[in-house]
Amino acid sequence: MVNKKKLSQITPKEVRRLIRKGEWNRPTAGVAMGYAQANLVILPEKYAFDFLLFCQRNPKPCPLLEVLEPGKYRTDFLSSDADIRTDIPKYNVYQKGKLETTVKEIKGFWRDDFVSFLLGCSFSFEEALLRAQIPVRHIEENKNVPMYITHIPCKPAGAFHGPMVVSMRPLPPDKVVRATQITSRYGAVHGSPVHIGDPSKVGIKNLKKPDFGDAVTIRRGEILVFWACGVTPQAVVMEAKPDLCVTHTPGHMFVSDLLNEELATL
Amino acid sequence: MVNKKKLSQITPKEVRRLIRKGEWNRPTAGVAMGYAQANLVILPEKYAFDFLLFCQRNPKPCPLLEVLEPGKYRTDFLSSDADIRTDIPKYNVYQKGKLETTVKEIKGFWRDDFVSFLLGCSFSFEEALLRAQIPVRHIEENKNVPMYITHIPCKPAGAFHGPMVVSMRPLPPDKVVRATQITSRYGAVHGSPVHIGDPSKVGIKNLKKPDFGDAVTIRRGEILVFWACGVTPQAVVMEAKPDLCVTHTPGHMFVSDLLNEELATL
Repeated sequence: MVNKKKLSQITPKEVRRLIRKGEWNRPTAGVAMGYAQANLVILPEKYAFDFLLFCQRNPKPCPLLEVLEPGKYRTDFLSSDADIRTDIPKYNVYQKGKLETTVKEIKGFWRDDFVSFLLGCSFSFEEALLRAQIPVRHIEENKNVPMYITHIPCKPAGAFHGPMVVSMRPLPPDKVVRATQITSRYGAVHGSPVHIGDPSKVGIKNLKKPDFGDAVTIRRGEILVFWACGVTPQAVVMEAKPDLCVTHTPGHMFVSDLLNEELATL
Repeated sequence: MVNKKKLSQITPKEVRRLIRKGEWNRPTAGVAMGYAQANLVILPEKYAFDFLLFCQRNPKPCPLLEVLEPGKYRTDFLSSDADIRTDIPKYNVYQKGKLETTVKEIKGFWRDDFVSFLLGCSFSFEEALLRAQIPVRHIEENKNVPMYITHIPCKPAGAFHGPMVVSMRPLPPDKVVRATQITSRYGAVHGSPVHIGDPSKVGIKNLKKPDFGDAVTIRRGEILVFWACGVTPQAVVMEAKPDLCVTHTPGHMFVSDLLNEELATL
Protein backbone atom coordinates (compact mmCIF):
# COMPACT_ATOMS: atom_id res chain seq x y z
CA MET A 1 0.00 0.00 0.00
CA VAL A 2 1.29 3.41 -1.00
CA ASN A 3 2.32 5.95 1.62
CA LYS A 4 -0.40 8.53 2.25
CA LYS A 5 1.94 11.49 2.59
CA LYS A 6 3.25 10.79 -0.88
CA LEU A 7 -0.31 10.53 -2.19
CA SER A 8 -1.08 14.10 -1.09
CA GLN A 9 1.38 15.32 -3.70
CA ILE A 10 0.92 13.06 -6.67
CA THR A 11 -1.47 13.82 -9.50
CA PRO A 12 -5.11 12.69 -9.62
CA LYS A 13 -4.26 10.63 -12.70
CA GLU A 14 -1.63 8.72 -10.77
CA VAL A 15 -3.98 8.32 -7.76
CA ARG A 16 -6.63 6.81 -10.03
CA ARG A 17 -4.04 4.50 -11.60
CA LEU A 18 -3.04 3.22 -8.15
CA ILE A 19 -6.67 2.72 -7.19
CA ARG A 20 -7.38 0.90 -10.47
CA LYS A 21 -4.42 -1.42 -9.86
CA GLY A 22 -5.70 -2.18 -6.35
CA GLU A 23 -2.80 -0.40 -4.65
CA TRP A 24 -4.98 2.11 -2.80
CA ASN A 25 -8.31 1.16 -1.18
CA ARG A 26 -8.45 3.52 1.81
CA PRO A 27 -10.28 6.86 2.24
CA THR A 28 -9.19 9.65 -0.08
CA ALA A 29 -9.19 12.60 2.36
CA GLY A 30 -5.89 14.46 1.90
CA VAL A 31 -5.09 12.69 -1.34
CA ALA A 32 -4.00 14.83 -4.35
CA MET A 33 -4.48 18.04 -2.39
CA GLY A 34 -5.93 20.91 -4.40
CA TYR A 35 -8.04 18.70 -6.65
CA ALA A 36 -11.80 18.28 -6.31
CA GLN A 37 -13.13 14.95 -5.11
CA ALA A 38 -16.62 13.72 -5.94
CA ASN A 39 -19.39 11.58 -4.50
CA LEU A 40 -20.80 8.90 -6.81
CA VAL A 41 -24.39 7.74 -7.19
CA ILE A 42 -25.25 5.25 -9.94
CA LEU A 43 -28.91 4.52 -10.70
CA PRO A 44 -30.74 2.60 -13.42
CA GLU A 45 -32.08 4.86 -16.17
CA LYS A 46 -35.68 4.58 -15.02
CA TYR A 47 -34.80 6.60 -11.91
CA ALA A 48 -32.42 9.01 -13.64
CA PHE A 49 -34.77 11.83 -14.63
CA ASP A 50 -36.31 12.05 -11.16
CA PHE A 51 -32.92 12.02 -9.45
CA LEU A 52 -31.50 14.63 -11.84
CA LEU A 53 -34.58 16.73 -11.11
CA PHE A 54 -34.08 16.21 -7.36
CA CYS A 55 -30.52 17.52 -7.70
CA GLN A 56 -31.67 20.50 -9.81
CA ARG A 57 -34.18 21.38 -7.10
CA ASN A 58 -31.75 20.88 -4.21
CA PRO A 59 -28.42 22.23 -5.43
CA LYS A 60 -26.96 22.82 -1.96
CA PRO A 61 -27.11 19.22 -0.71
CA CYS A 62 -26.83 17.81 -4.27
CA PRO A 63 -24.32 19.92 -6.26
CA LEU A 64 -23.88 18.10 -9.56
CA LEU A 65 -20.40 18.14 -11.00
CA GLU A 66 -21.05 15.71 -13.84
CA VAL A 67 -23.77 13.36 -15.01
CA LEU A 68 -23.01 10.64 -17.54
CA GLU A 69 -25.40 9.39 -20.18
CA PRO A 70 -26.91 5.91 -19.72
CA GLY A 71 -24.26 3.20 -19.95
CA LYS A 72 -21.38 5.65 -20.04
CA TYR A 73 -18.57 5.07 -17.52
CA ARG A 74 -15.97 7.57 -18.71
CA THR A 75 -16.13 11.15 -17.50
CA ASP A 76 -15.63 14.11 -19.87
CA PHE A 77 -15.58 17.05 -17.50
CA LEU A 78 -13.96 15.79 -14.30
CA SER A 79 -11.24 13.83 -16.05
CA SER A 80 -10.39 12.67 -19.54
CA ASP A 81 -9.09 9.21 -18.75
CA ALA A 82 -11.09 7.93 -15.78
CA ASP A 83 -13.28 4.84 -15.62
CA ILE A 84 -15.79 5.21 -12.83
CA ARG A 85 -16.21 1.40 -12.66
CA THR A 86 -12.65 0.94 -11.39
CA ASP A 87 -11.21 4.28 -10.26
CA ILE A 88 -12.86 4.58 -6.84
CA PRO A 89 -11.27 2.72 -3.90
CA LYS A 90 -14.52 1.07 -2.70
CA TYR A 91 -18.11 0.86 -3.85
CA ASN A 92 -21.31 0.11 -1.96
CA VAL A 93 -23.94 -1.90 -3.81
CA TYR A 94 -27.52 -1.47 -2.59
CA GLN A 95 -30.59 -3.48 -3.52
CA LYS A 96 -33.96 -1.93 -2.64
CA GLY A 97 -32.17 0.49 -0.32
CA LYS A 98 -30.27 -2.21 1.54
CA LEU A 99 -26.46 -2.50 1.46
CA GLU A 100 -25.72 -5.85 -0.17
CA THR A 101 -21.99 -5.77 -0.68
CA THR A 102 -18.88 -3.58 -0.75
CA VAL A 103 -16.58 -4.15 -3.71
CA LYS A 104 -13.36 -2.80 -5.20
CA GLU A 105 -14.64 -2.45 -8.73
CA ILE A 106 -18.02 -2.74 -10.42
CA LYS A 107 -17.22 -3.98 -13.91
CA GLY A 108 -19.13 -7.15 -13.05
CA PHE A 109 -22.21 -5.16 -11.93
CA TRP A 110 -22.17 -2.75 -14.82
CA ARG A 111 -25.33 -2.39 -16.91
CA ASP A 112 -26.05 -0.43 -20.08
CA ASP A 113 -28.86 1.43 -18.34
CA PHE A 114 -26.69 2.74 -15.48
CA VAL A 115 -26.59 6.53 -15.12
CA SER A 116 -23.71 7.92 -13.04
CA PHE A 117 -24.03 11.11 -11.02
CA LEU A 118 -20.90 12.74 -9.60
CA LEU A 119 -21.55 15.29 -6.86
CA GLY A 120 -19.35 17.87 -5.19
CA CYS A 121 -17.76 17.19 -1.80
CA SER A 122 -17.01 19.49 1.13
CA PHE A 123 -13.30 18.56 1.01
CA SER A 124 -13.04 21.30 -1.64
CA PHE A 125 -14.37 24.11 0.51
CA GLU A 126 -12.56 22.89 3.63
CA GLU A 127 -9.30 23.32 1.79
CA ALA A 128 -10.32 26.90 0.97
CA LEU A 129 -11.20 27.51 4.64
CA LEU A 130 -7.86 26.16 5.82
CA ARG A 131 -5.99 28.31 3.30
CA ALA A 132 -7.74 31.32 4.85
CA GLN A 133 -6.59 30.30 8.37
CA ILE A 134 -10.11 29.28 9.39
CA PRO A 135 -9.91 26.31 11.75
CA VAL A 136 -11.79 23.14 10.82
CA ARG A 137 -12.39 21.31 14.09
CA HIS A 138 -12.92 17.74 12.86
CA ILE A 139 -9.69 17.97 10.85
CA GLU A 140 -7.85 19.29 13.94
CA GLU A 141 -9.27 16.39 15.94
CA ASN A 142 -8.67 13.83 13.18
CA LYS A 143 -12.34 12.85 13.10
CA ASN A 144 -15.15 12.59 10.57
CA VAL A 145 -17.22 15.77 10.26
CA PRO A 146 -20.36 15.59 12.47
CA MET A 147 -23.54 15.30 10.37
CA TYR A 148 -27.13 15.76 11.51
CA ILE A 149 -30.54 15.07 10.01
CA THR A 150 -32.47 18.37 10.11
CA HIS A 151 -36.14 19.15 9.79
CA ILE A 152 -35.42 21.24 6.65
CA PRO A 153 -37.28 19.38 3.89
CA CYS A 154 -35.63 18.89 0.53
CA LYS A 155 -37.85 19.72 -2.44
CA PRO A 156 -39.17 16.34 -3.57
CA ALA A 157 -38.91 15.00 -7.14
CA GLY A 158 -40.70 11.82 -8.16
CA ALA A 159 -39.70 9.01 -5.81
CA PHE A 160 -37.01 11.10 -4.14
CA HIS A 161 -37.74 13.06 -0.98
CA GLY A 162 -36.50 13.51 2.55
CA PRO A 163 -34.91 15.89 5.04
CA MET A 164 -31.67 17.74 4.44
CA VAL A 165 -28.60 16.37 6.20
CA VAL A 166 -26.10 19.02 7.29
CA SER A 167 -22.49 19.00 8.41
CA MET A 168 -21.47 21.23 11.33
CA ARG A 169 -18.28 23.18 11.94
CA PRO A 170 -17.93 25.28 15.13
CA LEU A 171 -16.15 28.58 14.49
CA PRO A 172 -14.80 31.49 16.55
CA PRO A 173 -17.27 34.39 16.13
CA ASP A 174 -14.76 36.48 14.18
CA LYS A 175 -14.44 33.80 11.49
CA VAL A 176 -18.12 33.24 10.70
CA VAL A 177 -18.56 35.99 8.10
CA ARG A 178 -15.34 35.08 6.30
CA ALA A 179 -16.27 31.38 6.29
CA THR A 180 -19.66 32.29 4.80
CA GLN A 181 -18.03 34.41 2.11
CA ILE A 182 -15.47 31.78 1.21
CA THR A 183 -17.90 28.88 0.96
CA SER A 184 -20.35 31.05 -0.99
CA ARG A 185 -17.78 31.01 -3.79
CA TYR A 186 -18.03 27.22 -3.96
CA GLY A 187 -21.62 26.64 -5.11
CA ALA A 188 -20.50 23.45 -6.87
CA VAL A 189 -19.47 21.90 -3.54
CA HIS A 190 -22.43 22.75 -1.24
CA GLY A 191 -21.81 26.52 -1.24
CA SER A 192 -22.81 28.88 1.55
CA PRO A 193 -24.05 27.67 4.95
CA VAL A 194 -27.73 26.76 5.28
CA HIS A 195 -27.88 27.81 8.93
CA ILE A 196 -25.79 29.70 11.49
CA GLY A 197 -26.36 29.43 15.24
CA ASP A 198 -28.98 27.63 17.33
CA PRO A 199 -29.16 23.99 16.17
CA SER A 200 -32.71 23.56 17.48
CA LYS A 201 -33.92 26.01 14.82
CA VAL A 202 -33.23 23.36 12.18
CA GLY A 203 -34.40 20.45 14.29
CA ILE A 204 -31.10 19.23 15.74
CA LYS A 205 -31.65 18.06 19.31
CA ASN A 206 -28.35 16.67 20.52
CA LEU A 207 -25.05 17.94 19.14
CA LYS A 208 -23.19 15.19 20.98
CA LYS A 209 -25.03 12.53 19.02
CA PRO A 210 -24.56 13.23 15.33
CA ASP A 211 -26.57 11.03 12.98
CA PHE A 212 -23.41 10.37 10.95
CA GLY A 213 -19.72 11.04 11.63
CA ASP A 214 -18.23 12.02 14.96
CA ALA A 215 -19.06 14.62 17.62
CA VAL A 216 -16.40 17.33 17.89
CA THR A 217 -15.32 19.69 20.66
CA ILE A 218 -17.30 22.93 20.80
CA ARG A 219 -15.46 25.65 22.70
CA ARG A 220 -17.10 28.35 24.79
CA GLY A 221 -18.34 31.22 22.62
CA GLU A 222 -17.98 29.39 19.34
CA ILE A 223 -20.74 29.72 16.76
CA LEU A 224 -22.10 26.65 15.04
CA VAL A 225 -22.18 26.83 11.27
CA PHE A 226 -24.15 24.27 9.24
CA TRP A 227 -23.67 23.37 5.60
CA ALA A 228 -25.78 21.12 3.37
CA CYS A 229 -24.14 17.70 3.24
CA GLY A 230 -23.56 15.14 0.50
CA VAL A 231 -25.03 12.44 2.70
CA THR A 232 -28.42 13.95 1.81
CA PRO A 233 -28.64 12.48 -1.71
CA GLN A 234 -27.47 9.09 -0.48
CA ALA A 235 -30.08 9.09 2.30
CA VAL A 236 -32.76 10.17 -0.15
CA VAL A 237 -31.82 7.47 -2.66
CA MET A 238 -31.82 4.73 0.00
CA GLU A 239 -35.24 5.90 1.21
CA ALA A 240 -36.62 5.59 -2.35
CA LYS A 241 -35.46 1.93 -2.39
CA PRO A 242 -34.45 1.58 -6.05
CA ASP A 243 -33.98 -2.00 -7.32
CA LEU A 244 -30.26 -1.35 -7.57
CA CYS A 245 -27.96 1.51 -6.68
CA VAL A 246 -24.18 1.78 -6.52
CA THR A 247 -22.36 4.51 -4.61
CA HIS A 248 -18.80 5.13 -3.46
CA THR A 249 -18.16 3.85 0.06
CA PRO A 250 -18.29 6.94 2.32
CA GLY A 251 -14.93 8.73 2.39
CA HIS A 252 -13.65 6.74 -0.60
CA MET A 253 -14.22 9.35 -3.28
CA PHE A 254 -13.59 9.89 -6.96
CA VAL A 255 -10.45 12.04 -7.31
CA SER A 256 -10.94 14.37 -10.28
CA ASP A 257 -8.54 16.38 -12.43
CA LEU A 258 -10.42 19.58 -11.63
CA LEU A 259 -8.69 22.01 -9.29
CA ASN A 260 -10.89 23.19 -6.42
CA GLU A 261 -10.03 26.69 -7.56
CA GLU A 262 -11.64 25.97 -10.93
CA LEU A 263 -14.94 25.40 -9.11
CA ALA A 264 -14.90 28.80 -7.43
CA THR A 265 -16.95 31.73 -8.66
CA LEU A 266 -16.41 35.47 -8.16
CA MET B 1 -55.69 46.06 -23.88
CA VAL B 2 -54.15 47.24 -20.66
CA ASN B 3 -51.81 50.22 -20.60
CA LYS B 4 -48.15 49.12 -20.50
CA LYS B 5 -47.01 51.82 -18.09
CA LYS B 6 -49.52 50.58 -15.58
CA LEU B 7 -48.33 47.00 -16.10
CA SER B 8 -44.80 47.90 -15.02
CA GLN B 9 -46.11 48.52 -11.52
CA ILE B 10 -48.69 45.82 -10.93
CA THR B 11 -47.90 42.47 -9.40
CA PRO B 12 -46.89 39.36 -11.34
CA LYS B 13 -50.06 37.66 -10.09
CA GLU B 14 -52.21 40.39 -11.62
CA VAL B 15 -50.15 40.31 -14.86
CA ARG B 16 -50.74 36.57 -15.16
CA ARG B 17 -54.46 37.07 -14.49
CA LEU B 18 -54.68 39.61 -17.32
CA ILE B 19 -52.77 37.28 -19.65
CA ARG B 20 -55.01 34.35 -18.69
CA LYS B 21 -58.12 36.43 -19.44
CA GLY B 22 -56.71 37.39 -22.85
CA GLU B 23 -56.26 41.04 -21.89
CA TRP B 24 -52.50 41.08 -22.50
CA ASN B 25 -50.88 39.29 -25.45
CA ARG B 26 -47.89 41.53 -26.18
CA PRO B 27 -44.20 41.17 -25.17
CA THR B 28 -43.53 41.25 -21.43
CA ALA B 29 -40.37 43.44 -21.39
CA GLY B 30 -40.87 46.11 -18.73
CA VAL B 31 -43.86 44.35 -17.19
CA ALA B 32 -43.91 43.88 -13.37
CA MET B 33 -40.47 45.45 -12.99
CA GLY B 34 -38.27 43.83 -10.39
CA TYR B 35 -39.65 40.33 -10.92
CA ALA B 36 -37.87 37.56 -12.80
CA GLN B 37 -39.26 36.47 -16.15
CA ALA B 38 -38.66 33.03 -17.60
CA ASN B 39 -38.30 31.27 -20.93
CA LEU B 40 -40.45 28.18 -21.45
CA VAL B 41 -39.57 24.94 -23.23
CA ILE B 42 -42.05 22.04 -23.10
CA LEU B 43 -40.95 18.62 -24.36
CA PRO B 44 -42.48 15.14 -24.26
CA GLU B 45 -41.06 13.00 -21.46
CA LYS B 46 -38.95 10.85 -23.77
CA TYR B 47 -36.71 13.88 -24.44
CA ALA B 48 -36.76 15.21 -20.88
CA PHE B 49 -33.73 13.51 -19.35
CA ASP B 50 -31.47 14.47 -22.25
CA PHE B 51 -32.66 18.07 -22.21
CA LEU B 52 -32.30 18.33 -18.43
CA LEU B 53 -28.79 16.92 -18.81
CA PHE B 54 -28.06 19.43 -21.59
CA CYS B 55 -29.07 22.25 -19.24
CA GLN B 56 -26.98 20.81 -16.40
CA ARG B 57 -23.96 20.73 -18.72
CA ASN B 58 -24.55 24.19 -20.16
CA PRO B 59 -25.75 26.34 -17.25
CA LYS B 60 -24.76 29.67 -18.80
CA PRO B 61 -26.98 29.46 -21.89
CA CYS B 62 -29.53 27.20 -20.12
CA PRO B 63 -29.98 28.42 -16.52
CA LEU B 64 -32.83 26.33 -15.12
CA LEU B 65 -35.16 28.14 -12.76
CA GLU B 66 -37.73 25.36 -12.47
CA VAL B 67 -38.53 22.02 -14.08
CA LEU B 68 -41.95 20.44 -13.65
CA GLU B 69 -42.62 16.75 -13.42
CA PRO B 70 -44.31 15.03 -16.40
CA GLY B 71 -47.87 16.29 -16.87
CA LYS B 72 -47.54 19.04 -14.26
CA TYR B 73 -48.54 22.55 -15.36
CA ARG B 74 -48.45 24.40 -12.05
CA THR B 75 -45.18 25.83 -10.79
CA ASP B 76 -44.06 25.51 -7.15
CA PHE B 77 -40.96 27.65 -7.04
CA LEU B 78 -41.60 30.51 -9.47
CA SER B 79 -45.18 31.08 -8.39
CA SER B 80 -47.80 29.34 -6.30
CA ASP B 81 -50.86 30.01 -8.47
CA ALA B 82 -49.64 29.96 -12.08
CA ASP B 83 -50.79 27.66 -14.87
CA ILE B 84 -48.14 27.51 -17.53
CA ARG B 85 -50.77 26.39 -20.11
CA THR B 86 -52.53 29.76 -19.97
CA ASP B 87 -50.32 32.33 -18.23
CA ILE B 88 -47.95 33.19 -21.06
CA PRO B 89 -49.11 35.72 -23.67
CA LYS B 90 -48.22 33.60 -26.72
CA TYR B 91 -46.91 30.12 -27.39
CA ASN B 92 -45.08 28.64 -30.36
CA VAL B 93 -45.93 25.05 -31.22
CA TYR B 94 -43.25 23.15 -33.17
CA GLN B 95 -43.51 19.77 -34.87
CA LYS B 96 -40.23 18.09 -35.81
CA GLY B 97 -38.47 21.43 -35.31
CA LYS B 98 -40.84 23.38 -37.58
CA LEU B 99 -43.09 26.16 -36.26
CA GLU B 100 -46.64 24.93 -36.85
CA THR B 101 -48.73 27.53 -35.07
CA THR B 102 -48.74 30.36 -32.54
CA VAL B 103 -51.49 30.20 -29.93
CA LYS B 104 -52.70 32.09 -26.85
CA GLU B 105 -53.07 29.06 -24.64
CA ILE B 106 -52.14 25.39 -24.86
CA LYS B 107 -54.82 23.62 -22.85
CA GLY B 108 -55.91 21.93 -26.07
CA PHE B 109 -52.37 20.72 -26.82
CA TRP B 110 -51.61 19.56 -23.30
CA ARG B 111 -50.43 16.00 -22.78
CA ASP B 112 -49.73 13.99 -19.64
CA ASP B 113 -46.18 13.34 -20.78
CA PHE B 114 -45.26 17.01 -21.21
CA VAL B 115 -42.29 18.19 -19.16
CA SER B 116 -41.97 21.96 -18.72
CA PHE B 117 -38.63 23.70 -18.36
CA LEU B 118 -38.51 27.33 -17.21
CA LEU B 119 -35.20 29.07 -17.85
CA GLY B 120 -33.78 32.38 -16.65
CA CYS B 121 -33.87 35.45 -18.86
CA SER B 122 -31.43 38.34 -19.28
CA PHE B 123 -34.15 40.87 -18.37
CA SER B 124 -33.17 40.13 -14.75
CA PHE B 125 -29.54 41.09 -15.06
CA GLU B 126 -30.27 44.04 -17.35
CA GLU B 127 -32.35 45.55 -14.58
CA ALA B 128 -29.37 45.12 -12.22
CA LEU B 129 -27.07 46.78 -14.79
CA LEU B 130 -29.44 49.74 -15.19
CA ARG B 131 -29.72 50.17 -11.42
CA ALA B 132 -25.90 50.47 -11.36
CA GLN B 133 -26.01 53.20 -14.05
CA ILE B 134 -24.54 50.89 -16.67
CA PRO B 135 -26.04 51.77 -20.06
CA VAL B 136 -27.80 49.01 -22.00
CA ARG B 137 -27.66 50.10 -25.63
CA HIS B 138 -30.57 48.11 -27.12
CA ILE B 139 -32.84 49.42 -24.35
CA GLU B 140 -31.67 53.00 -25.06
CA GLU B 141 -32.40 52.44 -28.76
CA ASN B 142 -35.68 50.62 -28.12
CA LYS B 143 -34.52 47.52 -29.99
CA ASN B 144 -34.18 43.81 -29.40
CA VAL B 145 -30.78 42.80 -28.06
CA PRO B 146 -28.43 41.69 -30.89
CA MET B 147 -27.75 37.95 -30.77
CA TYR B 148 -25.08 36.00 -32.62
CA ILE B 149 -24.35 32.33 -33.25
CA THR B 150 -20.77 31.68 -32.08
CA HIS B 151 -18.35 28.88 -32.73
CA ILE B 152 -18.31 28.04 -29.00
CA PRO B 153 -19.76 24.52 -28.85
CA CYS B 154 -22.27 23.62 -26.15
CA LYS B 155 -21.55 20.36 -24.36
CA PRO B 156 -23.86 17.86 -26.10
CA ALA B 157 -26.35 15.60 -24.28
CA GLY B 158 -28.21 12.87 -26.14
CA ALA B 159 -30.02 14.39 -29.13
CA PHE B 160 -29.22 17.94 -28.06
CA HIS B 161 -26.14 19.74 -29.37
CA GLY B 162 -25.16 22.91 -31.14
CA PRO B 163 -23.27 26.20 -30.88
CA MET B 164 -23.79 28.74 -28.13
CA VAL B 165 -25.80 31.80 -29.05
CA VAL B 166 -24.70 35.01 -27.31
CA SER B 167 -26.21 38.42 -26.77
CA MET B 168 -23.96 41.48 -27.11
CA ARG B 169 -23.92 44.76 -25.18
CA PRO B 170 -21.34 47.44 -26.04
CA LEU B 171 -19.99 49.20 -22.94
CA PRO B 172 -17.73 52.14 -22.16
CA PRO B 173 -14.35 50.70 -21.02
CA ASP B 174 -14.80 51.96 -17.47
CA LYS B 175 -18.02 49.94 -17.06
CA VAL B 176 -16.78 46.51 -18.20
CA VAL B 177 -15.42 45.27 -14.88
CA ARG B 178 -18.50 46.43 -12.96
CA ALA B 179 -20.84 44.82 -15.50
CA THR B 180 -18.90 41.57 -15.18
CA GLN B 181 -19.13 41.71 -11.39
CA ILE B 182 -22.84 42.48 -11.38
CA THR B 183 -23.85 39.80 -13.84
CA SER B 184 -21.62 37.26 -12.07
CA ARG B 185 -24.06 37.54 -9.17
CA TYR B 186 -26.88 36.34 -11.41
CA GLY B 187 -25.86 32.79 -12.29
CA ALA B 188 -29.53 31.82 -12.55
CA VAL B 189 -30.01 34.23 -15.45
CA HIS B 190 -26.95 33.55 -17.67
CA GLY B 191 -24.41 34.91 -15.17
CA SER B 192 -21.04 36.39 -16.08
CA PRO B 193 -20.04 37.20 -19.68
CA VAL B 194 -18.69 34.38 -21.84
CA HIS B 195 -16.44 36.72 -23.83
CA ILE B 196 -15.16 40.30 -23.74
CA GLY B 197 -13.67 42.04 -26.77
CA ASP B 198 -12.88 40.90 -30.31
CA PRO B 199 -16.00 39.19 -31.72
CA SER B 200 -13.96 37.18 -34.25
CA LYS B 201 -12.44 35.24 -31.33
CA VAL B 202 -15.81 33.53 -30.81
CA GLY B 203 -16.62 33.23 -34.50
CA ILE B 204 -18.76 36.33 -35.01
CA LYS B 205 -18.04 37.79 -38.45
CA ASN B 206 -20.39 40.71 -38.91
CA LEU B 207 -21.69 42.69 -35.93
CA LYS B 208 -24.08 44.56 -38.20
CA LYS B 209 -25.88 41.35 -39.10
CA PRO B 210 -26.95 39.66 -35.89
CA ASP B 211 -28.44 36.19 -36.31
CA PHE B 212 -31.38 37.21 -34.10
CA GLY B 213 -32.58 40.59 -32.80
CA ASP B 214 -31.37 43.98 -34.01
CA ALA B 215 -27.95 45.54 -34.63
CA VAL B 216 -27.19 48.38 -32.19
CA THR B 217 -24.92 51.43 -32.34
CA ILE B 218 -21.34 50.77 -31.24
CA ARG B 219 -19.54 53.97 -30.26
CA ARG B 220 -15.83 54.62 -30.70
CA GLY B 221 -13.79 53.04 -27.91
CA GLU B 222 -16.60 50.87 -26.57
CA ILE B 223 -15.84 47.32 -25.57
CA LEU B 224 -18.11 44.53 -26.70
CA VAL B 225 -19.35 42.23 -23.95
CA PHE B 226 -21.00 38.91 -24.79
CA TRP B 227 -23.30 36.88 -22.57
CA ALA B 228 -24.73 33.39 -23.15
CA CYS B 229 -28.25 33.75 -24.50
CA GLY B 230 -31.53 31.93 -23.89
CA VAL B 231 -31.98 31.50 -27.63
CA THR B 232 -29.36 28.73 -27.35
CA PRO B 233 -31.68 26.09 -25.81
CA GLN B 234 -34.43 26.93 -28.29
CA ALA B 235 -32.02 26.62 -31.24
CA VAL B 236 -30.68 23.35 -29.84
CA VAL B 237 -34.16 21.92 -29.33
CA MET B 238 -35.28 22.88 -32.85
CA GLU B 239 -32.14 21.28 -34.29
CA ALA B 240 -32.97 18.00 -32.48
CA LYS B 241 -36.39 18.01 -34.22
CA PRO B 242 -38.54 16.50 -31.46
CA ASP B 243 -41.99 15.26 -32.55
CA LEU B 244 -43.57 18.10 -30.60
CA CYS B 245 -42.25 21.05 -28.65
CA VAL B 246 -44.00 24.09 -27.20
CA THR B 247 -42.16 27.28 -26.24
CA HIS B 248 -43.13 30.81 -25.33
CA THR B 249 -43.15 33.12 -28.36
CA PRO B 250 -39.88 35.13 -28.15
CA GLY B 251 -40.28 38.15 -25.88
CA HIS B 252 -43.57 36.85 -24.47
CA MET B 253 -42.28 35.45 -21.22
CA PHE B 254 -43.58 33.82 -18.06
CA VAL B 255 -43.73 36.51 -15.35
CA SER B 256 -42.78 34.91 -12.03
CA ASP B 257 -43.33 35.91 -8.40
CA LEU B 258 -39.59 35.73 -7.76
CA LEU B 259 -37.78 39.01 -7.30
CA ASN B 260 -34.65 39.36 -9.43
CA GLU B 261 -32.84 40.15 -6.21
CA GLU B 262 -33.81 36.72 -4.85
CA LEU B 263 -31.81 35.18 -7.71
CA ALA B 264 -28.62 37.03 -6.82
CA THR B 265 -25.73 35.43 -4.97
CA LEU B 266 -22.98 37.02 -2.88
